[in-house]
Amino acid sequence: GATLFVTLEPCNHMGKTPPCSEAIIAAGIKKVIFAVSDPNPIAQGGVKKLIDAGIIVEQGLLQDEVSFTNRAWLGKINNSRPYITIKIAASLDGKVAALDGSSKWITSEISRSDVAILRSQCDAIVTGTGTVLADNPSLTVRNVERENFEFRPVRVILGKREIPIDSKILDKSAETIQINDSDLGALIELAKERSWNQVLIEAGPTLSSAFLKAGLFDEVFLYQAPTLLGSGLDFAGNLGIESLNQRLDLELIAADLLGNKDKNLRLHLLAVSK
Amino acid sequence: GATLFVTLEPCNHMGKTPPCSEAIIAAGIKKVIFAVSDPNPIAQGGVKKLIDAGIIVEQGLLQDEVSFTNRAWLGKINNSRPYITIKIAASLDGKVAALDGSSKWITSEISRSDVAILRSQCDAIVTGTGTVLADNPSLTVRNVERENFEFRPVRVILGKREIPIDSKILDKSAETIQINDSDLGALIELAKERSWNQVLIEAGPTLSSAFLKAGLFDEVFLYQAPTLLGSGLDFAGNLGIESLNQRLDLELIAADLLGNKDKNLRLHLLAVSK
Repeated sequence: GATLFVTLEPCNHMGKTPPCSEAIIAAGIKKVIFAVSDPNPIAQGGVKKLIDAGIIVEQGLLQDEVSFTNRAWLGKINNSRPYITIKIAASLDGKVAALDGSSKWITSEISRSDVAILRSQCDAIVTGTGTVLADNPSLTVRNVERENFEFRPVRVILGKREIPIDSKILDKSAETIQINDSDLGALIELAKERSWNQVLIEAGPTLSSAFLKAGLFDEVFLYQAPTLLGSGLDFAGNLGIESLNQRLDLELIAADLLGNKDKNLRLHLLAVSK
Repeated sequence: GATLFVTLEPCNHMGKTPPCSEAIIAAGIKKVIFAVSDPNPIAQGGVKKLIDAGIIVEQGLLQDEVSFTNRAWLGKINNSRPYITIKIAASLDGKVAALDGSSKWITSEISRSDVAILRSQCDAIVTGTGTVLADNPSLTVRNVERENFEFRPVRVILGKREIPIDSKILDKSAETIQINDSDLGALIELAKERSWNQVLIEAGPTLSSAFLKAGLFDEVFLYQAPTLLGSGLDFAGNLGIESLNQRLDLELIAADLLGNKDKNLRLHLLAVSK
């Protein structure tokens, strides 16, 4: 005779587990309150099944909040591709490296810890051979504790260039896949094969700009260090924009100061549908 | 027998008005509580005079807050030059114009209204001949109401190039001075002659970068529009920085979202003393 509060409409299909609807009916629950309808065609029908079984069903509680929290999975179902998050760390004037190429570290330690949390929320972390060769990043989830299990996002390298066998990204701390192609579609195919919900792009200007230019992204986390370089390497590189009216508008939804003494800024931006 | 709360230590000299200390004594005030000592050598001695007259004096209430609110005047006294505020409006990737030169408007109407308030707090608004020729700005205080009086900051143009007689900046809405020199020192001299407390630099990348590079500024207001241009004109231009360790660090003290639907970001940054 209990009431069940749940974020997503209970499913009605046999996936890795049996249908939620049947489990709810069998448990003798009287009322189900859920936030978001299941957009997945093969899983739909849960509400009807529950109502047919005499259960009271209410929909829409905290719908906006739940849609946002669950945006990666919902985005994957709606767009038939993984939810794509682009992470960029730059100076206030949009540079990721100085004139001489020096780039470590523009943002602060607390920004980098924040990025580790972001990584832990994604199924895969994507970079390019250029970044591997230039920065030798490990792209692991460091010092992030997740409940109940140890989660290690897959590391993906895009590009045809050979990378040294002793690159950190090839260590044993997580799986690594090199796609010998710089075509973005190859990443999407891999993501579908693996059923990834969310991938994080942590790459240099060339690859990041390719995703931005193609409109192949859902959100951007821009970490800004309060510093100026004047000249150097732009994070957005070439977007093929010549005039102001071709600008790539984003929706700014949050600006958070990170740290105490040595503050960095984290901007959360969403893609704007055209 | 009253208690007087005042931000600045009462002065002890004859300026445009007689000494505050004498007025306080004459009024029969018993106790004076002030926040910040007067750093101006010719005005000092107020506390001693009040104590000698038998008045109880306490110092330091809300000292940090008052020092911040009054940073322009205090800065002028301490640095023997006006407090210099640089305003920049740019895309997220630090561009003030697209490849083809188009630049109006990168930031939103609410950002521009906010800038008008900033202007109203300054004694002078400084720009360069390049900006006058390219954008024809009026640089006036629009739609800002100030208590009791109508305040019109002086408009100052730096540079030797001739500007059209019908430029908006030459209209009758406020005084305008052209300094036929691009030397920053000439502006400082003018500011001293005029006893300006605070000047606002609203110029293009060349002039703004000159102030930044020379360390001739106290704070920066950076208005960021949530848009990307990729290529175009950098706001920071050439700062003479070649390597990351030469970066120009600033202190980020506030990040505010302006507007509702069409959000812009206002960053308030302070110069860091080296």
